[in-house]
Amino acid sequence: MNELVNKMTSFIVMDVLERAIELQNNGINIIHMEVGEPDFDVPSCVADAVAQAYKEHRTHYSHSLGDIELRREIAGLYKAEYGVTVSPEQIIVTAGSSPAIMLAMILLCNNGSEVILSNPGYACYANFVLAAHGNPVYVPLTADNGFQYKVNDIKDKITNKTAAIFINSPMNPTGTLLNPDFYSEVAKLGVPIVSDEIYHGLVYEGKAHSILEYTDNAFVLNGFSKRFAMTGLRLGYMIAPMEYMQSIQKLGQNLLICAPSTAQRAGIAALRDKSDYQENMRKTYNERRTYMLERLRKMGFVIPTDPQGAFYIFADARKFTNDCYKFAFDILENAHVGITPGIDFGTGGEGFVRFSYANSIENIKIGLDRIEQYLARSK
Amino acid sequence: MNELVNKMTSFIVMDVLERAIELQNNGINIIHMEVGEPDFDVPSCVADAVAQAYKEHRTHYSHSLGDIELRREIAGLYKAEYGVTVSPEQIIVTAGSSPAIMLAMILLCNNGSEVILSNPGYACYANFVLAAHGNPVYVPLTADNGFQYKVNDIKDKITNKTAAIFINSPMNPTGTLLNPDFYSEVAKLGVPIVSDEIYHGLVYEGKAHSILEYTDNAFVLNGFSKRFAMTGLRLGYMIAPMEYMQSIQKLGQNLLICAPSTAQRAGIAALRDKSDYQENMRKTYNERRTYMLERLRKMGFVIPTDPQGAFYIFADARKFTNDCYKFAFDILENAHVGITPGIDFGTGGEGFVRFSYANSIENIKIGLDRIEQYLARSK
Repeated sequence: MNELVNKMTSFIVMDVLERAIELQNNGINIIHMEVGEPDFDVPSCVADAVAQAYKEHRTHYSHSLGDIELRREIAGLYKAEYGVTVSPEQIIVTAGSSPAIMLAMILLCNNGSEVILSNPGYACYANFVLAAHGNPVYVPLTADNGFQYKVNDIKDKITNKTAAIFINSPMNPTGTLLNPDFYSEVAKLGVPIVSDEIYHGLVYEGKAHSILEYTDNAFVLNGFSKRFAMTGLRLGYMIAPMEYMQSIQKLGQNLLICAPSTAQRAGIAALRDKSDYQENMRKTYNERRTYMLERLRKMGFVIPTDPQGAFYIFADARKFTNDCYKFAFDILENAHVGITPGIDFGTGGEGFVRFSYANSIENIKIGLDRIEQYLARSK
Repeated sequence: MNELVNKMTSFIVMDVLERAIELQNNGINIIHMEVGEPDFDVPSCVADAVAQAYKEHRTHYSHSLGDIELRREIAGLYKAEYGVTVSPEQIIVTAGSSPAIMLAMILLCNNGSEVILSNPGYACYANFVLAAHGNPVYVPLTADNGFQYKVNDIKDKITNKTAAIFINSPMNPTGTLLNPDFYSEVAKLGVPIVSDEIYHGLVYEGKAHSILEYTDNAFVLNGFSKRFAMTGLRLGYMIAPMEYMQSIQKLGQNLLICAPSTAQRAGIAALRDKSDYQENMRKTYNERRTYMLERLRKMGFVIPTDPQGAFYIFADARKFTNDCYKFAFDILENAHVGITPGIDFGTGGEGFVRFSYANSIENIKIGLDRIEQYLARSK
């Protein structure tokens, strides 16, 4: 079988999810804390915008870079939130942010290029690098400083083959926000930064920054899946330096054609929405975060610094286990709660497990009760 | 800039389209015969299915291989149309068929793998091969035998690096159907066949065959963009041999996550639709085809064999030009009709132009009148 696919890591959270679904199909009630998907419904304006798009027969291909109205709204968002000026001509809209990551990697990598990633970090980044025939180079992060990237550690990994540095804030799996000093310093390294800003809008302490506040030599990844719970609509985008746009459009036209047209109309509506949808969602997530942090710490999980964003808690489970993969499946089989083993995010995640609070507070309570009872039983 | 992107060919039809839109923005009426997009509206059941999907909150991620109901319907289509048995577990649903082509190429190509393509052929195939670090290897087709692939020509190109052979029937840009003998023979070569069946359902003479009638060592590409005019919904799929599915799912989970969920519900409705939508569309395309063929031949374009499917006529324009790129832009600037130069489909397309009849008969008439008058003026 294909060398490249063999090199790619499996997405362990999917193994957990699939086993959880098997158990459910056998009649067992499972509480899901493994998946990284908002449990919220989309804003009500979204279904209306889609219905309107069908009435207006907007079911044909869009511009290969995306509906110009949507690109203007995205530029408006970046102006309003971060004070940065982005031209709509610097934006490509894609079917979720994943195809945008693929475009960035095809664009930036030649055969054998190196791309710097954090360990732990989002599992798929490395596989995009491999798919573009690049090599992932890892910078270890440690829990004791809240999983902050250190610029010197990144600098040590830069070679003449370095094509890009991935950053992600708020970060999956840790919920950590990168601090402004880090942005200033990393921007000075002179290497293109791929900044995954998909969890922006889901921040409970501090403030998320965009890499574009610090440098133009950056590829921003973002989308509608987290901020507006629009996962199934597949709507993401990339903001790139103008000088790359001709190549990006060529890649987009050839490899993707365009993003879903009706979803793009939904995206415009979501960005124009004046309801308190986002604020309510943020408040609800924050309540769950506070509750879950307290419960997990009481049980003996170690969480040195509070996560500030996203909807994850990355907890040190070494009081209970030296094998987080086995631990996660033990919890699933015996406590009927899905959680993600830390090694899904790299070797640096060993000993940790990720709890997602993209589930109702009622379910979170039941899930944590079950885990607590299971851990008490197995002492 | 990136070596790989430089190697990729531009999509010339997009240059024509963009210039056409510029002219339109200057108040000039343009008849579009350049674009490969159905002018039909989606089946009425599609908007209803999408509205229902929103009511049922089906806006979350789907299974990474696609909604199981949709995969069952696709398997049903292949059983009904071609008598072949496909398991829903052999299908991955993607955001249009383009991401499926990318997955197939990542899966089949190692660095330096060779992939056999026809010349002329769909411009983007070669760029997918390049994106996967493979090398396109071309087999020339000639108009005199209706642009039929010859198996011996393919055989001559096979080396120990050959990873796949692309076939496409009805074919873009020629509208040609591959004949059953070709399928039998190509299936015996022992190389995986990537069969693009996206124009199935739009056949006016003869019958389209699926590669799966002849071999299981095949990757079928298909979707909803042509048969149901659902271009903007971005819904395609790949049928692959079972032994590759674990790798395909790994690639899909990592690089794509899933296809649009609401569009998948629309796809189910379209495949279950009992209306005469498809038959009416087919009849209308066929009327246009017949009309356009007659008019073009009268004007002096040479079309040795009638195209049997898709919505294109690939016409020999050498009576008028030795430079089809210049000719297409001359027609655009002077006759205000968009057509695609044959070299967009490879060097084997030089001297030809592609006319799309995905436009109303009224517009087609105006467009052909304009071209006729322009050619008469410029004699």
